[in-house]
Amino acid sequence: MDSHAFEALTVETLPVRLGGNAAIKRRIGDNSSLWSIKEVGDGNLNLVFIVTGETGSVIVKQALPYVRLVGESWPLPLKRSFFEYHALKRQAARDPGMVPEILFFDEAQAIIAMEFLTPHVILRRALIDGRELPRVGRDLGLFVARTLFRGSDLSMDTRAKKADVALFSDNVELCDITENLVFSDPYFEAPLNRHTTPQLDPLVAELRADRDLKVEAQRLKHLFSAKAETLCHGDLHTGSVMVTEAETRIIDPEFAFYGPISFDIGMLAANFWMSYFSQTGHEATPGARDSMRAYLLGTIDTLWETFRAEFAHLWRTERKGILYQASLFESRSDPLAAEQALACVMNDIWHEMLGFAGIEIHRRIIGLAHNADFETITDPDSRARCESKALKLGRHLAVNRQRIHSLRDIRETVERLEKEILA
Amino acid sequence: MDSHAFEALTVETLPVRLGGNAAIKRRIGDNSSLWSIKEVGDGNLNLVFIVTGETGSVIVKQALPYVRLVGESWPLPLKRSFFEYHALKRQAARDPGMVPEILFFDEAQAIIAMEFLTPHVILRRALIDGRELPRVGRDLGLFVARTLFRGSDLSMDTRAKKADVALFSDNVELCDITENLVFSDPYFEAPLNRHTTPQLDPLVAELRADRDLKVEAQRLKHLFSAKAETLCHGDLHTGSVMVTEAETRIIDPEFAFYGPISFDIGMLAANFWMSYFSQTGHEATPGARDSMRAYLLGTIDTLWETFRAEFAHLWRTERKGILYQASLFESRSDPLAAEQALACVMNDIWHEMLGFAGIEIHRRIIGLAHNADFETITDPDSRARCESKALKLGRHLAVNRQRIHSLRDIRETVERLEKEILA
Repeated sequence: MDSHAFEALTVETLPVRLGGNAAIKRRIGDNSSLWSIKEVGDGNLNLVFIVTGETGSVIVKQALPYVRLVGESWPLPLKRSFFEYHALKRQAARDPGMVPEILFFDEAQAIIAMEFLTPHVILRRALIDGRELPRVGRDLGLFVARTLFRGSDLSMDTRAKKADVALFSDNVELCDITENLVFSDPYFEAPLNRHTTPQLDPLVAELRADRDLKVEAQRLKHLFSAKAETLCHGDLHTGSVMVTEAETRIIDPEFAFYGPISFDIGMLAANFWMSYFSQTGHEATPGARDSMRAYLLGTIDTLWETFRAEFAHLWRTERKGILYQASLFESRSDPLAAEQALACVMNDIWHEMLGFAGIEIHRRIIGLAHNADFETITDPDSRARCESKALKLGRHLAVNRQRIHSLRDIRETVERLEKEILA
Repeated sequence: MDSHAFEALTVETLPVRLGGNAAIKRRIGDNSSLWSIKEVGDGNLNLVFIVTGETGSVIVKQALPYVRLVGESWPLPLKRSFFEYHALKRQAARDPGMVPEILFFDEAQAIIAMEFLTPHVILRRALIDGRELPRVGRDLGLFVARTLFRGSDLSMDTRAKKADVALFSDNVELCDITENLVFSDPYFEAPLNRHTTPQLDPLVAELRADRDLKVEAQRLKHLFSAKAETLCHGDLHTGSVMVTEAETRIIDPEFAFYGPISFDIGMLAANFWMSYFSQTGHEATPGARDSMRAYLLGTIDTLWETFRAEFAHLWRTERKGILYQASLFESRSDPLAAEQALACVMNDIWHEMLGFAGIEIHRRIIGLAHNADFETITDPDSRARCESKALKLGRHLAVNRQRIHSLRDIRETVERLEKEILA
């Protein structure tokens, strides 16, 4: 590849343009005339090709200069590919083996060629199908603890951390999407919003008139825009996770930015809670998905408890950054001081995480970008019932995030919402 | 000036090197052979010259590649001059007339030529002399409200704000000074620390063994390093303020960085409280400075109340950034929602400000960089008595910052410490 003007790949041009690439040829075979190419991009933004040769397959992902879902009327810079590449490199170093291996990157053409994950499927799809994947909670808990701890001033050399803050500060357009579509648009009649009508109209009107909720959503946006704590994945929902029974992998970090440690965790938890409330829309007979529902709540418990335990482990063993230095605590024979500080930091992460989860739920039901969990429920009445419960949980979490102290309390609220005990 | 290798200015070389500069000549006169030059840098870091010609004077400030106070063994990048220049430009735009006018800037030579302020004196010096300057509290309150509001996502275009976050992220070495000398070194036996010995030894030992205090200092460091809310001056003590009866000007923002809105305010308040406790060391007879003490507490009240009122005014009239958008509040006929959000933001600023004030007091008495307020008290017993009261206030503020709700409460504590009612 050269750095000529950007040109979108096609199934036809790909073998010509990438046929000389040594890294790809090593992986899938030298003879590019034998490559078979399939375009599989089902996301909102990019082109994604599976390229299969004599000895294997690779993924070739290319950004387009606009939002694929909307078209050229919504331009979006190619540079998101640069941020995805840099985020993948850092995540691979911070939690080895959890993101796809990169084979090569072409900044000008916004192309990343990477490991083809097979037989992995998208986690969201698996959850819709009712599959109880045993490793997901633990694997994701470890991934968020390790990437978020190791990208922060708890661990990094602060010069490198500040350089990364500067680097990722330029990911303006993708942050802008989150700033608008997650934190603001859902809470007023923004043109891009949509929801299951008319079943949800009264509840949506109620949420958009809810002063406490709107203030809290903006306080969370304030955290998003100003708490440059660590390198977040930035879009860590169940559509950014690929799974088998034996493996969990995380993809698509093009929304990467320096933000709160709590952000990725909250977004993940929200997507499991949404999956929970969507299950009645997918079960053949009432109760058929009871085990799946229990699995999902258990997965949220495992996600949080694993995060908590691994973060505490890293706190005790890898706290080499400028914050909460051992020279003030352990080295002065006061290890309990370090535990007290950890309790403070973890307390903040917990209460923020609940808030981010709450607004993530809202934007997926009353904003622009919806979830297949609910969207694939064809009966609008059933869909609205599922969505309504999730919306109420979202409001409960966002507004009461400082008053909620355990997942057990939330589980009770979730189960009572599910049983329609809480109107 | 050209961009040849850096060379420190001297009284002898300055007229040769800057004699051709049109901006300076316009201000002070064409004939550089008639210029008289005085080196007046009394700060810790830089060279400062007053250059006087036939029609006026200018200040020429040049960074050195090391800390002037310490020498070449402590290197410090020239680039701090670049950050000072950029901070001055932004402060001039955000609160016109409050910082010195810049005549020219040479990045490679780390030279800023600027307006000579006369007959201004350093505020700290005036306070030591017992001068009650009537405008200071109000002028500084307006300055911090305007610069801090207008440098944040409450006001700026977020692309410009993110670009400034990236720009100032590179001010690593000066942030490193604050990170170490303010937040960490004072709380253990760091080699650069010093204090009035042996009178203060027991109290210093007590503070360095104080778990709650050390944890809180590190939590404040966490805010300093991760809350990229606005462009802070970064070193806004009473030595960075120049005054006459009629005017207040703010200088020396080379520590500028993106940090918490609360940081500059806390540092300012701390320096007024230190001035308060230093007064007994300067008064001719007991009680001679009673009026000065009342003035100082009144100035803190005015500083905070002016900040609060101006910030609220800007909130209501200039909130054009991505945070707390009018489209969610005022435009939906819910102006009280915007007031609720303001109350949340102001509450955070208040409690953080108290914490930063507390640790600023400590580092000025038991860290490396001391204040003339105390240092000019020649009797060590008297100095230790003054410093001890200030240290106790600092601990009280830092540890109890979430529990203190008004300046009236603090005034009571301050006055009881001063009267030695609180041991």
